[in-house]
Amino acid sequence: MSRYTIGVDFGTESGRAVLVDVADGRELATHVYPYSHGVIDEALPLDDRTVRLEPDWALQDPDDYLRVFQVTIPAVVKAAGIDSADVIGIGVDFTACTMLPTKADGTPLCTLPAFRANPHAWVKLWKHHAAQPEADRINALARERNEGWLDRYGGKISSEWFFSKALQILDEAPEVYAEADRLLEAADWVVWRLTGVETRNSCTAGYKALWSKREGFPDAAYFGALDPRFANVIDEKMTRVITPIGERAGGLTGEAAAWTGLRPGIAVAIANVDAHVAVPAATVTETGRMVMIMGTSICHMVLGDEEKVVPGMCGYVEDGIIPGFFGYEAGQSCVGDHFAWFTENCVPESYEREAGDRGIDVHGLLGEKATRLAVGESGLLALDWWNGNRSVLVDADLTGLLVGATLATKPEEIYRALIEATAYGTRIIIETFEENGVPVHEMVACGGLPEKNPLLMQIYADVTGRPFKVSASSQTSALGSAMFGAVAAGAEAGGYATIADASRAMARLKDRVFEPIEANRVAYDPLYREYVKLHDYFGRGGNNVMKTLKALRSQARAGRPGPEA
Amino acid sequence: MSRYTIGVDFGTESGRAVLVDVADGRELATHVYPYSHGVIDEALPLDDRTVRLEPDWALQDPDDYLRVFQVTIPAVVKAAGIDSADVIGIGVDFTACTMLPTKADGTPLCTLPAFRANPHAWVKLWKHHAAQPEADRINALARERNEGWLDRYGGKISSEWFFSKALQILDEAPEVYAEADRLLEAADWVVWRLTGVETRNSCTAGYKALWSKREGFPDAAYFGALDPRFANVIDEKMTRVITPIGERAGGLTGEAAAWTGLRPGIAVAIANVDAHVAVPAATVTETGRMVMIMGTSICHMVLGDEEKVVPGMCGYVEDGIIPGFFGYEAGQSCVGDHFAWFTENCVPESYEREAGDRGIDVHGLLGEKATRLAVGESGLLALDWWNGNRSVLVDADLTGLLVGATLATKPEEIYRALIEATAYGTRIIIETFEENGVPVHEMVACGGLPEKNPLLMQIYADVTGRPFKVSASSQTSALGSAMFGAVAAGAEAGGYATIADASRAMARLKDRVFEPIEANRVAYDPLYREYVKLHDYFGRGGNNVMKTLKALRSQARAGRPGPEA
Repeated sequence: MSRYTIGVDFGTESGRAVLVDVADGRELATHVYPYSHGVIDEALPLDDRTVRLEPDWALQDPDDYLRVFQVTIPAVVKAAGIDSADVIGIGVDFTACTMLPTKADGTPLCTLPAFRANPHAWVKLWKHHAAQPEADRINALARERNEGWLDRYGGKISSEWFFSKALQILDEAPEVYAEADRLLEAADWVVWRLTGVETRNSCTAGYKALWSKREGFPDAAYFGALDPRFANVIDEKMTRVITPIGERAGGLTGEAAAWTGLRPGIAVAIANVDAHVAVPAATVTETGRMVMIMGTSICHMVLGDEEKVVPGMCGYVEDGIIPGFFGYEAGQSCVGDHFAWFTENCVPESYEREAGDRGIDVHGLLGEKATRLAVGESGLLALDWWNGNRSVLVDADLTGLLVGATLATKPEEIYRALIEATAYGTRIIIETFEENGVPVHEMVACGGLPEKNPLLMQIYADVTGRPFKVSASSQTSALGSAMFGAVAAGAEAGGYATIADASRAMARLKDRVFEPIEANRVAYDPLYREYVKLHDYFGRGGNNVMKTLKALRSQARAGRPGPEA
Repeated sequence: MSRYTIGVDFGTESGRAVLVDVADGRELATHVYPYSHGVIDEALPLDDRTVRLEPDWALQDPDDYLRVFQVTIPAVVKAAGIDSADVIGIGVDFTACTMLPTKADGTPLCTLPAFRANPHAWVKLWKHHAAQPEADRINALARERNEGWLDRYGGKISSEWFFSKALQILDEAPEVYAEADRLLEAADWVVWRLTGVETRNSCTAGYKALWSKREGFPDAAYFGALDPRFANVIDEKMTRVITPIGERAGGLTGEAAAWTGLRPGIAVAIANVDAHVAVPAATVTETGRMVMIMGTSICHMVLGDEEKVVPGMCGYVEDGIIPGFFGYEAGQSCVGDHFAWFTENCVPESYEREAGDRGIDVHGLLGEKATRLAVGESGLLALDWWNGNRSVLVDADLTGLLVGATLATKPEEIYRALIEATAYGTRIIIETFEENGVPVHEMVACGGLPEKNPLLMQIYADVTGRPFKVSASSQTSALGSAMFGAVAAGAEAGGYATIADASRAMARLKDRVFEPIEANRVAYDPLYREYVKLHDYFGRGGNNVMKTLKALRSQARAGRPGPEA
């Protein structure tokens, strides 16, 4: 008799359910629900008044998340043509940090009439960037007090993270902060809605809320020094009980069973993060194999047996990705975004025309022309910092650089140089891990780019000197959640005892492996050495021109009467 | 009674005559003759066989030059509706170094049947770049022997110059070298054709043939060390009698009078170079005011009272521009070319569409958008080395750099950064002159760019902190030649005694002056400091990445089976 689990992946614009056969990971059906209010970044979706949002705000409506369950789960059960009684578990992954304030029973403050018009009562989406002043205070105070946890995050925490957002609520809407019995990740909130049990997962707690298994949270003295009212944020609004991912959060409530058409009581897994949940779905549950989620940006994840401080990571969390391992995360802030910027701003009409005449898109045309170039033939080298540098320099104020241009330089040469720059950036991350005791010998890619851009994959293999494999699933995160659903259900219910077991049975790679081409690997070495020289000169204080230019830019903009001037 | 002179300007693709009123410089008529064989860079224009040229070759047909006189002079006299008897003088300017081998009577070797199929018998145009190996030998030997004259040319001479080309003839076609009684500039050759008198002008001799008024030519020992057959090149093929520009070369011969319809015996001026002849036509006959000829590249010229060694110039020549002064020349190799490259390769379809919809060209659209940006607002900085750096680094292997790009960077911001980079390059040239005792307090621009690009002119004024005036004539070189024609005729014949007198009467500036805007001048200072830091780091050996990339590029290309691979 077949058994199934459902993975639900909450993205930025929509939620997606995938129904998976537990035996072999076959994806039987998928359904996507676009959030009815999407990303709320201009005004609150109210009928009776207008509440505009400041720049850099990004909110969501928690009811949209419930509608994902209500719409997509019945849809995949129906589309797969299975008996809903054979679904044994659900797993959930989410963007992070995406957080909200609720009452003690989980009711979101934004659903209460008294708070509906207050933007701070709504869900703050991961890309809500308005808490930068709070992040700056958190960082400055941590450095001043020499807080040990700062090292775990490459020396700097982000405006996107949990306490930046929580502190912004306190700063700007103390009445919302006071009324909030709970502050929590939307990931944990949706699991609470499914199970009736409030849990906090180790992944978001570790990567976004400064928690570690051995040291817990920063202490009350630190939080109190940020703001006396913030001293007991953990005990007042959160909890010190953090559950490792891979555990069962609870059983499906009657209410949630009614929403979804599934059996009450089936297992619901502890929540997870969209990036991290992809790791076992990309077949990785051991050390030495790095998973790269490649899209607009790149998230690099690798497991380690021991605790190592690797400079410039996004963070490392024990039990954060796979129970029993330290999960290390690094990142590059500008990859797919880079190529999108280039094709929008720098590709001439003649190329658009050529692509149009041949019925291909301009990315395809550029890729075709760039593929014909030999390594080094363009004479170009770039620093891939169009959106700052996350790992290993952790510096958002760095900017892009291109060197080597001549009057003979062609668009496809610049395009290839940008791809190569991101590959050099990945190589620096890999080498930094290895130099600090976290080995990386093979790469597994997932996300949108690997499917679309074989040239890019080959360049990454050649530059890093490592084989690149590709996850077979095009919805790796949802598959990973379904796998965690099977683990939450357990072996006795037809699932698995561990995520490693689930991964062996349910995860798969594509047949095509991008092996490094030896001649290219050798040819990239001197180019990489030049990249490192520029990287260190501009990124480690040899010449702060990028920061000076940014400061002068801010001055120039501040000196102008307005955007229309 | 009105008196007229005719200036004939020999360009790369065509020759142009302008007929000018001596009293006030009014340009009464212009006529252009496109050379029937243009630039000969693929095969010799022969009827009876095919002789292909190597890459980097660029030849011309001397008969085309004679046709310029035969066609354009009658045409301007006719169009102006004047009496040809009232034309009192002719002046000529030419591209340089553009040189040819002739018999003792001036007959070009390429017109002799025995040599017609030998490319070395034809005119080598200024942009014939195939003599690079000879230039390399000339430079290496000069450094080895510590030749003092090398300093006058910024430490390096060009493949375009006279002895590079002459030595290439000797190397590759010793039979042509042996048969050539004379080797000379086409500028001097056309004057010889008009007057029957062989002269050598001080401008090409000084800037292109290593001559100086005080030291003459390099000595025979040096030339002999290049090649024993080359030891006496000066005495065998040239002359040590060099005539200052501003003198009369001779009177128009009967033959040339018949070609042109002018009176026999009227004054013909000593030949000049197209750039240098523009200086008095831009009203400059004194120290302190720099003339910039702004087109695909920029040529900077300024006069000095004393001999100064200024690093990184193209050269300085006593009597080379205005008799009685040292004429200093510097250059930027990539200006208009830069913007042309950018609009061809980096401007997106949406901009082409917007320009088309509004009925303007894309340069106009970019200029309009770039004008709206405040100084520093783009956050971008470029090194303007897309075609190497002539002054002050004298290094053709440098390449372009852009720093400061973000995902919000727009094409007009890059466009403006490229303009600014060329302005910073000009400021470095000005400051280098001033630091070495050659003052520059005002700028006069001529050439194609000043007319077309007011944004560029304002940026140059703001960056350099100096007023930019613009020559009133759009054919400054031809006007300058007409002025020298008036000086050759002399005051008694209705012309002028000196070029300064001619300039005062005949040259004019436009009313519009680009004055530095104080706020912009101040705002550019910190950006210029950053430019200088990058300039010195990449240009003076701090990081030789540009040369390394060029070397790797050459390797990559050499390793490929062919251009189609």
